[in-house]
Order: sequence, then structure tokens, then C-alpha cells
Amino acid sequence: MLPRGRPRALGAAALLLLLFLIGFFLFGGDLDYGRPRPRGAAALDGDLPAGYGGHNSSDCDPPRPRPRPPKCELLQVAIVCAGHNSSRDIITLVKSMLFYRKNPLHLHLVTDAVARNILETLFHTWMVPAVWVSFYNADELKPQVSWIPNKHYSGLYGLMKLVLPGVLPPDLVRVIVLDTDVTFASNIAELWALFAYFSDKQVIGLVENQSDWYFGNLWRNHRPWPALGRGFNTGVILLRLDRLRQAGWEQMWKMTATRELLTLPATSLADQDIFNAVIKEHPWLVQPLPCVWNVQLSDHTLAERCYSEASDLKVIHWNSPKKLRVKNKHVESFRNLYLTFLEYDGNLLRRELFGCPCPLPPGAKQLQRALARLDEEDACFEFRQQQLTVHRVHITFLPHKPPPSQPHDVTLVAQLSMDRLQMLEALCRHWPGPMSLALYLTDAEAQQFLRFVETSAVLSARQDVAYHVVYREGPFYPINQLRNVALAQALTPYVFLSDIDFLPAYSLYDYLRASIKQLELDGGRKAALVVPAFETLHYRFSFPTSKAELLALLDAGSLHTFRYHEWPRGHAPTDYAHWREAQEPYRVQWAADYEPYVVVPRDCPRYDSRFVGFGWNKVAHIMELDAQEYELLVLPEAFIIHLPHAPSLDISRFRSSPTYRDCLQALKDEFHQDLSRSYGAAALKYLTALQQPRGPV
Amino acid sequence: MLPRGRPRALGAAALLLLLFLIGFFLFGGDLDYGRPRPRGAAALDGDLPAGYGGHNSSDCDPPRPRPRPPKCELLQVAIVCAGHNSSRDIITLVKSMLFYRKNPLHLHLVTDAVARNILETLFHTWMVPAVWVSFYNADELKPQVSWIPNKHYSGLYGLMKLVLPGVLPPDLVRVIVLDTDVTFASNIAELWALFAYFSDKQVIGLVENQSDWYFGNLWRNHRPWPALGRGFNTGVILLRLDRLRQAGWEQMWKMTATRELLTLPATSLADQDIFNAVIKEHPWLVQPLPCVWNVQLSDHTLAERCYSEASDLKVIHWNSPKKLRVKNKHVESFRNLYLTFLEYDGNLLRRELFGCPCPLPPGAKQLQRALARLDEEDACFEFRQQQLTVHRVHITFLPHKPPPSQPHDVTLVAQLSMDRLQMLEALCRHWPGPMSLALYLTDAEAQQFLRFVETSAVLSARQDVAYHVVYREGPFYPINQLRNVALAQALTPYVFLSDIDFLPAYSLYDYLRASIKQLELDGGRKAALVVPAFETLHYRFSFPTSKAELLALLDAGSLHTFRYHEWPRGHAPTDYAHWREAQEPYRVQWAADYEPYVVVPRDCPRYDSRFVGFGWNKVAHIMELDAQEYELLVLPEAFIIHLPHAPSLDISRFRSSPTYRDCLQALKDEFHQDLSRSYGAAALKYLTALQQPRGPV
Repeated sequence: MLPRGRPRALGAAALLLLLFLIGFFLFGGDLDYGRPRPRGAAALDGDLPAGYGGHNSSDCDPPRPRPRPPKCELLQVAIVCAGHNSSRDIITLVKSMLFYRKNPLHLHLVTDAVARNILETLFHTWMVPAVWVSFYNADELKPQVSWIPNKHYSGLYGLMKLVLPGVLPPDLVRVIVLDTDVTFASNIAELWALFAYFSDKQVIGLVENQSDWYFGNLWRNHRPWPALGRGFNTGVILLRLDRLRQAGWEQMWKMTATRELLTLPATSLADQDIFNAVIKEHPWLVQPLPCVWNVQLSDHTLAERCYSEASDLKVIHWNSPKKLRVKNKHVESFRNLYLTFLEYDGNLLRRELFGCPCPLPPGAKQLQRALARLDEEDACFEFRQQQLTVHRVHITFLPHKPPPSQPHDVTLVAQLSMDRLQMLEALCRHWPGPMSLALYLTDAEAQQFLRFVETSAVLSARQDVAYHVVYREGPFYPINQLRNVALAQALTPYVFLSDIDFLPAYSLYDYLRASIKQLELDGGRKAALVVPAFETLHYRFSFPTSKAELLALLDAGSLHTFRYHEWPRGHAPTDYAHWREAQEPYRVQWAADYEPYVVVPRDCPRYDSRFVGFGWNKVAHIMELDAQEYELLVLPEAFIIHLPHAPSLDISRFRSSPTYRDCLQALKDEFHQDLSRSYGAAALKYLTALQQPRGPV
Repeated sequence: MLPRGRPRALGAAALLLLLFLIGFFLFGGDLDYGRPRPRGAAALDGDLPAGYGGHNSSDCDPPRPRPRPPKCELLQVAIVCAGHNSSRDIITLVKSMLFYRKNPLHLHLVTDAVARNILETLFHTWMVPAVWVSFYNADELKPQVSWIPNKHYSGLYGLMKLVLPGVLPPDLVRVIVLDTDVTFASNIAELWALFAYFSDKQVIGLVENQSDWYFGNLWRNHRPWPALGRGFNTGVILLRLDRLRQAGWEQMWKMTATRELLTLPATSLADQDIFNAVIKEHPWLVQPLPCVWNVQLSDHTLAERCYSEASDLKVIHWNSPKKLRVKNKHVESFRNLYLTFLEYDGNLLRRELFGCPCPLPPGAKQLQRALARLDEEDACFEFRQQQLTVHRVHITFLPHKPPPSQPHDVTLVAQLSMDRLQMLEALCRHWPGPMSLALYLTDAEAQQFLRFVETSAVLSARQDVAYHVVYREGPFYPINQLRNVALAQALTPYVFLSDIDFLPAYSLYDYLRASIKQLELDGGRKAALVVPAFETLHYRFSFPTSKAELLALLDAGSLHTFRYHEWPRGHAPTDYAHWREAQEPYRVQWAADYEPYVVVPRDCPRYDSRFVGFGWNKVAHIMELDAQEYELLVLPEAFIIHLPHAPSLDISRFRSSPTYRDCLQALKDEFHQDLSRSYGAAALKYLTALQQPRGPV
């Protein structure tokens, strides 16, 4: 803001030019150097050109050809990711990257089928502006690296970084390659800017390895792969793809690896061993990067030599197999940085870039338009906004094995939030079959949930329970959106649409499969099997092991039919009196407000997402099943029992707020209009039913 | 990491010196300039010296005398803060500042009594390394500014920035002054570095005002205070305190203000009007700062001219009275930044600075030592760690009026987490007196809680309920630490130590006060008044309005004495049979596992914080009351009723984990040893009781 006249501006421009020329003259040779010496501790102590990334660069640095990427340049990042656990890791990495970035980003993800499934859904629902994601099939790349014996915990996937020049699009010139276990503490554009220091021959930018591993003196008979001095770490790599392709990279690394494998049994550190062997042979290929761009927290790390000098760490690398539990006297501080992003609300990263053209991701534009059409003065504005909200979804958050394909198999479908976690163990004991559960959580709660499962022997033993995290956003519990996520992820031909507060009869899973078979539902019979619902008011009670026991408890008054006291209409059509005596499945008729728990084919109608919070969310679904002419068949031996809990916040709000009740009524009316549009005159009976007076809710 | 020989290093040094000299010669005049022109839009468009803070400064900038503070320099920050709401705001500001900072910080907080009380506790329990906090009494400063008529919403406190040079320690030379409604998006050291641009005469660094307010053409008869062009905004100020004191600042601004107030009725924008009037008169005092250091989001702001150019915003200023609800097409992005810190887990900011000496705050050293003494292999390690944890505490999170001092008044004391929020309204209806409630929440949950109270008519009507947020940390619910926080903040002579799942009889508050008076407890009688506890298993039931009604429900089986089925020992000594008939308070004897709800003087023993999670937390407290010879007097008309809820996670863990039960036993044993140490032979009876066999828990 200091005022400058034209002459001064001219003077300054001339000065800049002068500086540029002097700097180029003085440092030109450095940029071209091609004979790295064996590197010792000095390299970690900050032996960098002044301001060259290792320190903040605002002390006046000599000018350099291109110290920072132009504003708004698209940065390219490649990451190899496989399996459920790495898919969680990569999200923390991406969050840290997005938090500090100012540039548009293109992520190139080399994934197995599991990671692709998870990450495609995640990025699709995340809708971060100015982020593009491309997927590459890791399984197709396996033959290119599977011939290399490898002892590293990253397995085959670790080696895939070697084949990136051939895999990424031919017109991609530069890329930053990252391990999933790194965390950014700075703007990735500063890392990208280091490409400018590459000489014509340099093709790979790497940070020196921060341990003595490659010196081969860690233990007796320790025989590491060859490396230049301390070697380099491949957790963070800058690749000049164009030059690598030109230089015949593929042949180069394969020849080196083949030769070394004549005397060495296997790689110990996967791709890193091979990168180092190639560099040892062709040292001019490497551009060493400042240590702060890959602060390695392995056991016995020498990283402190790096960060004791630098006030600004740029990238932390959790490259010990112990990850966050690594021993290091500063680990608390590093862990805090990691936890920051682990628990960071990813929704907040949906912010636009300032001053860059910022095209909206697919879907976001329509969403924005739909939201803009809402009337903020409408008393039900929040309901409508919630129903339009696209929640970020992380499917199969934990390791999961899809159930083997069986024609009559049933998945239990339910949704929950943190306050129902304690139901999971009991549910697992009662339902030995596959489950698909949607969890409505914040990012921080998702981590609590992870620890909860890890410390539960019952839960961690189960691989057939799929947990899908739907990230919280907005004031209402989006119950039907959650149900739809869990339903969409069910992999068996049938689903049992339950709620988390119910425990099924121990025999229910087997009984349902037998019933589906017996009733020949797979023959195309369109039916919803009703599972009668009961409730107990006691926290602890002895769960009936048979229908006979259940009836005895019912007669003794320790059990009731579900919501018998508050809302009998919800289950009355199940006809409990008939059920007591029934030996065979029997058909019942739909009636207003009926909301039984049912077993249906997986391709049943979805839940109507306009119903959020408390009220009518299941009723509308059953209505739609009826409109689509599903038979309602009550199963004589099936039952579930509801356990007591405090009323949810949503039900409390419903009871105390007239607006809440009015809005629910408005949503019901609109639902009915839509039903009429879809089903014509047949939907008339629902309107009539809707207009009848009703009891208290 | 580029290798450089000695000759090159010498050359570089020479070059740096040369550049320094050239730069000084070229820009020296600018640093000295003293005649700001009237400032137009150009100033906001980034009319700054290249790299001068407005943009990232790594394009090679001409050298400047001191572009960045030396690593580890202590930075000084002053903020005026008064009342409950500003105390919440300032924490978000401080979190954003701490997140990006690399330097030690000294905060100078000018506070009223309310803010001081809150912030002292907060910083004391936050224990952030390398942060010092000093408090200054705002109330004492009122006479210095109260003569100025002021219409701004910040009230008297806004004006106090004017008197800082006299208030802050005389040896303090430079200070950054911030409004509580700013959010950092960058390292504050970069702002501090701008002091280096001050000429000898300049004393105040300010960003231009980003609205046309001071042009006086916003509406007919709009008469703003005089200002240089668009004027300056005082949300972010750099002050050279030494020079201000030398220049007779106090006299200067008072003269200007007095003179302007001859023709103007009052200040509209508090201190900002006066700063601008002084600057208009003495323009050489001001050093304009780049616009990115105070991006003003007032209504009709012109800030977009600033941030459309800059990719890096440094400080966001929510200077509209509408705060986050301000209309602005980019507000979502700014809001995301704000929400980032609003919801950020402040515990993560307890990280040490790298590469700076980083003295630990008071208490942190002992804590570190105590934690270091723990044995990580101990099966109960997590219990012991949790009990040592110092939780960050934000007392009186929401506006609160202390109850008028009355000799027999009673505060209801309880603790809760998010899953019990829905109890609050009912509790308020049942207890019309003062309450002190500890809430165990994450930072994000604290915001949900705030919204919950704001949208509840019942809760927002109550000013006598104090909510104390204790921030979550560790795996167990620290029940007794929470109780102690709530207990310590109770302001009446007596406290009713309750739990959140209980609703008191409607008459209980009045009845307790009458009983305290009748029993002459204020005469020094050492008694704990027992409030008999009952439970219902129904979510909805009609709360008894008298003892007679309660007894009828008990006889009908719709109510039970508390935990009658699961753990009758906990309340058996209350002697419910006697209570049915009692007309007068009666004394009962302590027995093993007795855990009644009691009314005691505020100075009663604290709860033992070793008991975390489920089990023995109240039992130990009652034991200590008995050891201190409190009479246990059961009140014949008092009762509370427990409402049903799902079992807590902790109780589920207790039931399923043998380690949990073993650790609880170990803690009990240690508690008893401590009891013996404190009370000698008298404590023997507790040991005997402890060793008796007991029923299932």
C-alpha cells in the first residue's frame, strides 16, 4: 500500500530483472548439478539453498526461475490405495491436502476394487469444488510387479508406484506421488513449485531417507539394497513423467531390479529399494528435496535433525508399521497434527477457491439451484433443506467380506448414531447373518466408532457386517436417507428392514431364509414378510427363546406389542391376536399409519427422503409397497423386541414444537400428491386414509 | 540441498548485502512517507509493494529491513473482551491464531469480571505451551471512556482500545490489537512482521475500511466522523506503544474526540471513529496495511475487491452485527473457515513449538511427570491416565446471572453429555431454582448445545442455570471430575447433588430451602439431607404431584424404589418403609454401597476423581461424608424419580469387560487406603464393609 510513482515502479522492475540475471548466473550451475555426493547428516541439517523450501522463503531469496506455481495452476497428485484401511488413511491425507491448498487438484488414484468402490462414492458425495478424481485399476497392474519378491507390509501395491509413468495419461507431464500415510502441514503448491529446480536430466525429486537403514549396519547380516549414501524415501515423490517415459524408465528399473534380485532375496521396502538401486546407478536422475517435505517418523528416525532446525514442517510421514503408536519424543505434536485432519469435518472443505475459476463438481450445480429455489421464509425451510442435503458417504468404513451369493439370503438393514452404539454387540449375538448398517456420525465420532469396534471382541470377529458412515450435516436426523444408504449397500437378494433398537429372535435369520424359500419369493412372488414387533420396558430382561416363551411374557405383562400404549395404529393391522394362534404365514391388509418391519427383495422401493427426523418415515415406505401391490404376509414364528431408551431429540422436538408437527403434515400432503401422480386413482385410498381423524402421536 | 562450495557461499553473502543496500536505497523513501493520499478502490485492489503481505511473498521480493520476525520471537497481542458471549468468540479467534502460529505468544486480555473468570479457568486448564496470558481490569478503565457517547453495539468496551497504551506494561513496545470477531487464516507472525515497515513517525498500522461508510453518502443525513478517504477499520491494529506514549497519545485522541463531539452527537463505530478522526488530523501516524489482513464482511462490504485478487486471505473480520448471518455471495467459504476453528478440538493445540524453547505452562510439568510415572503395561493404565487428565473447562458457557445471595438457597448440581440434552427442559420445569451443570462435550458438540438452548424457549428463558463445558478427552466419562466442576461453580450456600436422569418433585426446591431453614443447618449442624430416589420404567408417565400420589403409583407397580431390581443395596439404608410413614426428617446410618442423593453445604468434600466411567463414583463420596461425620437425614416429603434410558456405554463396558471390573476393584482398594490414611482407625469400618461379599452389580 506504499504509494509508488511510475519512475519507482520502473526502477523496481529493472532491479527485479537485474536480480534475476545475477541469480541465474550465480545459481545456474547448482540447478544443473548431476553428481550427488554420498549424503550424510549434513543433508538433514538444512544444507539447502537459502529459503529453498526448508525454511520459510520470505527472507529475500535470490531469484529462481519459477519458485511457486502460477495461481490457479492445476496440480496433479497420484496415490496408490487398496483395501478398507488404506481407504480411510487416504481420506485423512486428502483432508490435510485440501485444508491448505489454494490450487485446483487432480487426484489420480490407483485402486483395487474395494478402494475404488469406497472412494468413488466418497468423492461423488463430497463434492469438493476444483477437485477432479481419476481411477486406475490396480488389479490390472499386478502382473507388472508381481514377479518381484517383496517383504514390505505394503505388499504388491507398494511396488505400483514404479509403473505410474506407464499408467497415468500420456499427456501428464508432472505428478506428485504420495504414500497414504503422509499428512500435509502446508500448501501442496509449495511442493509442486520444487519441480522448477529440476535440471534437464533430473526426473525424480526425493527427500533423503531419515534413518541409517541403507548403510546396512542396523544389525548383523542386515543387507539392504544399494543406495546412494543414506538413500531416499519414496513416501513423497516428484516425477517428471515425460522425461521418465523418454528415458525408458520401465526398462531401466526392471533391469536394475532383475540384476539386484540375482543376489538379494527380495525387496524389504518395496518400491523404495528399487528406486534407490536405480538412483545409485544413475545418480543424475534425482533432485534431492528439502527434508521438511517428508519428515519420516519411523522407529529410530533421524528426523529430529531436520525438524529441530525448521520451524515449518511441510509433510509428516508415518512410515513406521506402528503408525501413530511409533516411539518418538515429539510424537504427541505430530499426532495432534494428524488427529486434526483425522477428526476434521470434511464438509468444511467444500469451500470454493478464491480468485480461481472454480467449476462445481457433478451434481453440485443442480443442488445449488434446488437450494436456491427454497424459500427461506417458509416455516419448513429447514426440513426442505435437510432433505436436499447431499451427505458425504463412506461406505464399508471397516473391513468387510461380502456374503457368499445364496438365493434366499437376507441382510439386516438399519441405521444409528453414536447413542445407539451399545446396541451393536447384542444385535450381533441375535443376528448371525449379514448386516448393512448406516451410521450418522461426525468425522470425530467415526474415529470413536472405529475404536469401539476394535475393542469389542464380538464386533471385530464379524466380517459380514458392513458399516457405512454418513457424515452429519443439518439439524435433523436424515433417517430415510440413512436407510437408503444401508439398503443400497445390501448384497443379498433380500433385506430385513429393521431399526437399531430392536433385537431379533435368535432364530430369525434362519427362519427368514427358510420362509423365503418356502414361500417361493424367488419365483417372482411380490411379497413383504411382516416380522411382528414387541417391546419391553425393562433394560434387562431374559430374551424369549421361542414364540411360546414370548407369549408367556406377553401374558405376564413384561412384554407388550410394540407401541401398544402410545400408537397402536402403527402395528394393529399385523393382527397380534391372529398371530398368537397362527401356524402359517397369513395375509393382512394395509391400513392407515401401518408401519411394520418387513423382509423384501433388495430392489424394493427406496424410502422417501423428504421425511427427516421423527414421523412418518416408515409409514410412507409401507404405503409405497402397498401401492406397488406387495402382498403383506405375517410370519407366524418371527418376532423382534424393542428395548427401552430415552426419547430421541427429534421426538422431543416433535412433541414440543407446533411448527414441527405442521411441517410434518405439509410433507405428508406433498408425499400424497406425489403418490397420486405415480399411482393414479389407486392412490386415492391413501388420501382418504390420510384425511381420517387420528389419535394422539 | 544443492551443494555449495565456500566461494559460492561467499558470493551469495555478498549478493545479499548488495541487494539489501539497493533495496534500502530504492524503498527507503517509501518507508518514510507521511502523506497518505485520499484512498480509493485502488488501495483495496492490491496496490501494495510486491509481496508485501497481500500476496505470498516468495516471488523474489526486494529485500526489506526486517520482513519476518526472528524465529521464536515472542509476539504480543491485546484483546478487549467482556461478557459471556464475547468470551466464546475470543476462544474461536485464539484457536485460529494458535493453529497457524509458530511463535510464542503473550495475550493481554482486557476483561470484565465475567470474562476474566471464564478465561482464567479456560487458559489455566488449556495448558497450551508457549502461551502467556495477562489480564487487565476493564471495569477500572471505564471512567477513561465512559464520557464518550457511543451508539455502537460493542458498547463501552469497544472504546477501550483507545486506552491500551496507558494500560499495557510500560516496557511493551509493540502490540497487535484484535477485535474478538476476527478469524486468522494465516500465521500471525506475518502480521507482526509488518511492524518493520513503519517509518519513524508511524505508530498505528491499519487496513483501509472496506465500505463507503466514511464517505457519508450511504443514506440521507448520514453524518460519519471525519476520516481520510474511506477511513480505516480498527478490527486489526498494529500499535507502536512506545511511540504512542512518547507522542502523548492520550491527550491527542481525547482532544480530537472532545472537539468532534461538539458537532457530532456520539460515536457510531466506537473507537474506530476516534482513531479515524485522529488520523485525519495527523495522517503521518498511520501505516496502511494490506487489505488481506482485515477482510471485512460487513453488509455491502467492498471486500471482494480485496479477495478477488488475493489467493491468500490472512484475517477475516465478521464486523457486521449479523456476524455469520451476513449476506455475501462468498459467505459460505468464509463461514467454513470460521466453523473450522469454532468446532476445532482445542486440545490439539496443546502442541509444542518446534525449534523454539517451549516452557510448559503452570501445572503441565507436574502433570507430565505424573503421567510419566504411570506404567503403560498396567492393565488399568487407561483408568489412571484418565484420572490425571486435565480437561479444558469453559465455565458459564452461556449467559448466566448469579442467584441473589440467600442464606438457605440450594443449587441443583449435575453433569451430562449430549445424549441427555433432552432432559434439560423437563429438569427446568421441575426445578425453578439455580442449577450448575457440567457438560462433557467436544468443541463441535458445544456448538450444537448452544443451538439447542437458543431454540428452546424453556431453556433460553432461564438465566439461573449455569452450564460449564468440560471438553472431552480420553476413553472414560470422567464423572467425578465433572461433578467437581459443577460443584465448584455452585454459588448458593447449599447444593443438591443430583444426576441428570432424575426429575425432582415439583415442590422440591421450595421444600429443601424450608427444610434447611427448619433444621438450622446454617447454624453449623453438619448434615446431608437425603432425597429418596425412585424410578419409572415408562418413557411417559404422569409425574406425581405429591407424596400420596407417589405412594399410590408405587403400590400400583408403576414406580419402584431406585434400582430396586438391580442393586437394592445402593438405597436400602434410606429405609423406604420408614419413609412411607415419616412426618419428620429421620436419621439413617451409613452402610456399605449406600449412594443416596443428598443436599449438603457447598463446601462439602469433593468427589474422588479416580473413579471414572461407571461404578463407585457416588459411593466413595457418601463414604467420605460419613467419615467426616455428616449426619444422614432423610427428608419425609422429598423425592426424585429416575427416567428410563438405554444403558450407558460405560455400564455396558463394565458388564462385558473383566478388566474393567478388576480395575474398579483396584481403584476401590486404593481409595480405601487413602481413606485410612486420612481418617485413621475410624475408617476401619469401611474396609470391613468393603470386604463383605456382595450381590451382582
